[in-house]
Amino acid sequence: MTTTATHLSSFAHRMDPLEVSTVREILKVTEMPEVISFAGGLPAPELFPTTELAQAFYHVIREEGRLALQYSTTEGYTPLRDYIALRLQTKGIRASANNILMLSGSQQGLDLAAKVLLNPGDKVIVARPTYLAAIQTFMLFEAQLITVASDDEGMDVEEVALKLRAHPDIKLIYLVANFDNPSGTTLSLERRERLVHLAQQYGVCILEDDPYGELRYRGEHLPPLKSLDESGLVLYLSTFSKTIAPGLRLGWLVAEKEIYQKLVIAKQASDLHTSTLTQRATYYYLTTHSTDEHIARLRAIYGERCSVMLESLARYFPATVRWTKPEGGMFLWAELAPQVRTEEILAEAIKEKIAFVPGAPFFANDKRHNFMRLNFSNQVPLQIEEGIKRLARVIARHHS
Amino acid sequence: MTTTATHLSSFAHRMDPLEVSTVREILKVTEMPEVISFAGGLPAPELFPTTELAQAFYHVIREEGRLALQYSTTEGYTPLRDYIALRLQTKGIRASANNILMLSGSQQGLDLAAKVLLNPGDKVIVARPTYLAAIQTFMLFEAQLITVASDDEGMDVEEVALKLRAHPDIKLIYLVANFDNPSGTTLSLERRERLVHLAQQYGVCILEDDPYGELRYRGEHLPPLKSLDESGLVLYLSTFSKTIAPGLRLGWLVAEKEIYQKLVIAKQASDLHTSTLTQRATYYYLTTHSTDEHIARLRAIYGERCSVMLESLARYFPATVRWTKPEGGMFLWAELAPQVRTEEILAEAIKEKIAFVPGAPFFANDKRHNFMRLNFSNQVPLQIEEGIKRLARVIARHHS
Repeated sequence: MTTTATHLSSFAHRMDPLEVSTVREILKVTEMPEVISFAGGLPAPELFPTTELAQAFYHVIREEGRLALQYSTTEGYTPLRDYIALRLQTKGIRASANNILMLSGSQQGLDLAAKVLLNPGDKVIVARPTYLAAIQTFMLFEAQLITVASDDEGMDVEEVALKLRAHPDIKLIYLVANFDNPSGTTLSLERRERLVHLAQQYGVCILEDDPYGELRYRGEHLPPLKSLDESGLVLYLSTFSKTIAPGLRLGWLVAEKEIYQKLVIAKQASDLHTSTLTQRATYYYLTTHSTDEHIARLRAIYGERCSVMLESLARYFPATVRWTKPEGGMFLWAELAPQVRTEEILAEAIKEKIAFVPGAPFFANDKRHNFMRLNFSNQVPLQIEEGIKRLARVIARHHS
Repeated sequence: MTTTATHLSSFAHRMDPLEVSTVREILKVTEMPEVISFAGGLPAPELFPTTELAQAFYHVIREEGRLALQYSTTEGYTPLRDYIALRLQTKGIRASANNILMLSGSQQGLDLAAKVLLNPGDKVIVARPTYLAAIQTFMLFEAQLITVASDDEGMDVEEVALKLRAHPDIKLIYLVANFDNPSGTTLSLERRERLVHLAQQYGVCILEDDPYGELRYRGEHLPPLKSLDESGLVLYLSTFSKTIAPGLRLGWLVAEKEIYQKLVIAKQASDLHTSTLTQRATYYYLTTHSTDEHIARLRAIYGERCSVMLESLARYFPATVRWTKPEGGMFLWAELAPQVRTEEILAEAIKEKIAFVPGAPFFANDKRHNFMRLNFSNQVPLQIEEGIKRLARVIARHHS
C-alpha cells in the first residue's frame, strides 16, 4: 500500500544509523536463571534496601500523598536537591540546589545535554571504548564522534589535546572518569587536571558521567572534574541507580546557571518533570537511614566480587589475554588475541551457559572485535569463579 | 572571560526560540493557598487514591522488590501493557502489548514521536489554539508549525485538507480530540472519520493525544481516531495522570510495528526505560481495585465542577464574552472582546486573588491575546462560583 510506503520513507534522518541495542538483545537471551551472566550492568538485587524503600514509599504516599502524587516543578524536589548539593560539596563540587536538575535516570542527562548543545554534525570526543548508550544518544542528535585512546589511566588526554587543535568545532568531551563502563579504568588526577584545563583553553564542554563514583573498593577517591572546574564548562551527571536501585529511574545533573536554564526548558518538553513520588520517597529513605553504611556494605560485597573475578582470571584465562584491574565500579574489560572475535566466543559461551557482552558496540567507530566486557556485581563469588573457569575453556579453543 | 563567551554562543540552534514556559511561571505565582486558581491543569489531589497506592507500592516492593527495583526492558512491564491493550480494545483500538510502549508520562510521547519523525523544517499541523507543551516539543525539533482553526466541533478538518494539498511536506497532524487542552472542545465523529481518511490519502501521521478521554461528563463516547485507522498512521497517546495521579509520571503510546521499533530505540537513548516500580505498583493497583468505580467518581465530581463553572459564567460574565461548553476534561476556553489583553486581566485578577492562564502561549504562531483558559477540576464548587464572580468584575472593567 502506498500509505505504508510513504510511512516507511518518512522517519527522521537521525534514526537512519540506529538499531536496537545489541547488548539489550543479548540481555534478553541471557536472563535465563541457569545462565551465569557477566553481561548485564546490573547491581545485585539482593542488596536493594527493599524493606526501607517499602516503608519510604508507604510513608510518603500516606503522609504527603496530595503533593507527592501531583504535578510538580521541572527542576525537582528542592529538599532532595539540597541533600545532593551537600553530598557533592564533600567531594569538592561547589553546587547548590539551584545547580541540580533531577532526572528520570542519568541516561536522560545524556539526552538533555545533547539536545541543548549539539547541532547535526557537531563533534564530540569519546574514548574508545566508551559507554554504548552515550554513543547511541549522540548519534541520535547526529553528532560526529571523534574517538581517543584510553589506557589503564583512562582517556588519553594528550590525544584529546591533538584532536582539539585539529578540530576547532569540537563541542563536547564525554567520559566516565571513575571505573569506566566498559573499561573499568579510572582517569588519573594528572589527566583530570589537564582535561579541565584543555576544556577551558578551547571553550569546550565536558560531560562527566559518574554513576559509579561511590563504588570504590581500593585506592583513594579522586576529585571529580567538576570540582576542578572554574569556568562552568563541566556538566556532572550521577544517579541513585548504583547506590540505591536502578528501577527507581532517578538521577541528576549539575550545571551552571546559563546551561541549567536551557536544560530545564529541554526537560520540560521531554517529560515535564521526574516522578514527584520517587523523589520524595528517595529523600525520605536517604534522610531516615545511613546512606554511608549502605554504600559501605555495597563496597565490601562488590569489592570481594571484583577481587574474585580478578583472581579467577589470573588462574584460568590464557596468559595471552589481558584485562583491566578496576578499583571500583561494576565492570572489567578483557582484550583477546587480535584475530579472535568475541561475538563467536559468546555464541559458544552461551552453550556453556555463560554470557558477557562483546566489545564492538562500545567503539563509536572502527569497531574492534577482540574485546569483552565482564560484569562482576551481579554474581556471587562461587558463580564468578565457576563462570570464569567455563569461559576460559571456550576462550582457550580460540587462543593459541 | 572568553570561556564563558564561547559557552554562551554554543547552544544548539534548536534552543534559540524557546523560553521557560510562561504558564509554568504563572503557576509558581498562583500556588499561594489563598488564591482561587483556575490556572493549572491539575487534577483534584483530594481524589487521588492515596491509601490504595500506598498499599500497592508497599506490596510490590516487599513482594517483588528484586525485580521491581532492577533495570528492565525499554518497552515496559508486559502485564501492564496487556491490561492497557484490553482496555483499549473496549474502545475499538486493535492493540496488543506489542503495540504499547510505556512512557515516563505522556509528554515523553510527544518528544519521542517528534524525535523519530521530524527533520528540521518538517511541517506539523496543530490547531489554533493547541496544547502548549506540544508546541514547545515540536519547536525543539525545529518543526515548522502550520495552524488550522478550531471551533465547537474541534479542529477544522476542511482547513486541514487545504493545508495538506498546499504543503506536500507535512509530516504530522497533532491534536487532542477529546476535551482539548486548552479549548475543551471535542472533535465530532464526522470530522474524526474525515481526518483519518485525509491522513491515509496523504500518507501523513496523526498523533492523537488523549489524556482526558476517560473523563466524559455528558454525551456519548466517540471512537478514538486510532480505532478508525486502517493504515497504521495514527499514534495514540494516553496517560494515568488524569485517572490515577500525575506525580507517577506514567503514560503510554500505541503504534504499529515499524514505528514502534523506532520509538523503542529513541526511548532507550532518552531514559533507558520507565520506572519498573511505578509500572508494577500501578498494575497492582489497577488489578486489585475497580478502575471503573474510581473513574465514575472522578466523572461525577469533575462533572459537577464543570457545570458549576458553566452556570457561574452564564450568571456573572459580561454577555459579550463567549466560552466553550466542554463535555469532559478539565478546561474551558473563553474569548473576550478583540481589544482586550488577558495578560492585563491576569495582572488585575491576581490582585483579587484569582488566577487563570492567558491564551497567547497556546497559539503556535499569530498569537491572539483575548483568550483565557479556565481549569475547573482543581477547585470545589463554592470556590468556582466565588472565583468566577470576582474574575467577572475584573473583566467587566475591560469590556463594554
